[in-house]
Amino acid sequence: MDGIKALTFDTGGTILDWHTGFRNSLAAAGETYGETRDWADMANQIRRAALKRMLNLGKDAAPSYNFDGAHRAAVDEVLAANEMDMLSDPERHWIAYDVPHNFKCWSDFPAVLPRLRRRFICASFTILSFRIIIDTARANGLSWDAVISCEAIGKYKPLPEAYLMAAHFLQLEPAQICMVACHNFDLDAAKAVGFKTAFVRRPDEWGSAGAPDPTPNPAHDIIVDDFPTLVAQLGA
Amino acid sequence: MDGIKALTFDTGGTILDWHTGFRNSLAAAGETYGETRDWADMANQIRRAALKRMLNLGKDAAPSYNFDGAHRAAVDEVLAANEMDMLSDPERHWIAYDVPHNFKCWSDFPAVLPRLRRRFICASFTILSFRIIIDTARANGLSWDAVISCEAIGKYKPLPEAYLMAAHFLQLEPAQICMVACHNFDLDAAKAVGFKTAFVRRPDEWGSAGAPDPTPNPAHDIIVDDFPTLVAQLGA
Repeated sequence: MDGIKALTFDTGGTILDWHTGFRNSLAAAGETYGETRDWADMANQIRRAALKRMLNLGKDAAPSYNFDGAHRAAVDEVLAANEMDMLSDPERHWIAYDVPHNFKCWSDFPAVLPRLRRRFICASFTILSFRIIIDTARANGLSWDAVISCEAIGKYKPLPEAYLMAAHFLQLEPAQICMVACHNFDLDAAKAVGFKTAFVRRPDEWGSAGAPDPTPNPAHDIIVDDFPTLVAQLGA
Repeated sequence: MDGIKALTFDTGGTILDWHTGFRNSLAAAGETYGETRDWADMANQIRRAALKRMLNLGKDAAPSYNFDGAHRAAVDEVLAANEMDMLSDPERHWIAYDVPHNFKCWSDFPAVLPRLRRRFICASFTILSFRIIIDTARANGLSWDAVISCEAIGKYKPLPEAYLMAAHFLQLEPAQICMVACHNFDLDAAKAVGFKTAFVRRPDEWGSAGAPDPTPNPAHDIIVDDFPTLVAQLGA
């Protein structure tokens, strides 16, 4: 891994715990109405519905919404599918907007970010909106060197143009950048355009249901269980 | 100034001291060849030539270069005009690239940025390249909440589209954002699309020559001599 100048971090899932955030907010809103559902499963339904709207967005036409728009559409869709249409507009806004902008980050990350920044440019490179990254960084005490949101690129991961534009903004060759993520689809796409890749396991990303694609592609340059181990393997 | 959620900072000139950086590097390179020039004036010539290439860039067609490209073109142009063609390519690259990526920031800023960030989103909003902001932040120990470079917008200040896109990325109304700069042209353009504006005087920006437009437009919401005073006036 010599010659690496920057680490680009997938942020939703890899840094932020969306599952607990959505699950708890759904449970709290449901309780207001005396409703009982499988809140963990509903949280995962929202994530799947939102990702479906975001991955490869911009491939054929300029995006007409960002991840905040996708969250709201996904929340409305999943509430309807689960017969929870009683939720008010402010409650839906809270779940779809306020909650993601305050997602907690996984506990092993805040302490290692400053260490990694001493040696590498550390950028959030994300399909989440600019504002989600700004707000969650502030809520969790994180300081990124830069936020590279696909919102500004207009082409969303895993489209190759997104990775190439991130490298262009960083003024680095893809081989000088290591993409860090807990998702093969993201890392595989980064590797396809020449990035180095580091898979960080997040077995709890989808709660007790388990991640849909938990086994790292052995082609990744680094495969670790947590961020302190990543630091050690990068010699940072 | 109630209701302000974010401060967007012009960065070249307002935060970074380009004049001293260019002047000293020109003097050092010239000394190698036993040359004597008015290095301070040459530094200002480079700045003027670079700005000429950047302001309003993207108005009629997509930009084909960023501020790093403009710096290199300006350095080559000014060296030629001053009969200093003897400088080698590595020396030109050092002056045009390495020096700007390591510009020092004005001494009153590093301590106030964390204070301002406690209350406001603080973003670098700049015509400088992404990488100049990333590198100068690292060199000066600054942490921005985000870097909004016109490089990613494709429309450069003072085009109104640049300010409106910055507000769009921040998900704020222009009136919820205060543009902070030492230049009327930047603040006047921000105000024209609805931003609040804060003029911070930088009498040494152009060295002993004095700034070309030093008198703040009285229409600005805040006019101060330094950043500690800005903090006080914002109640941060």
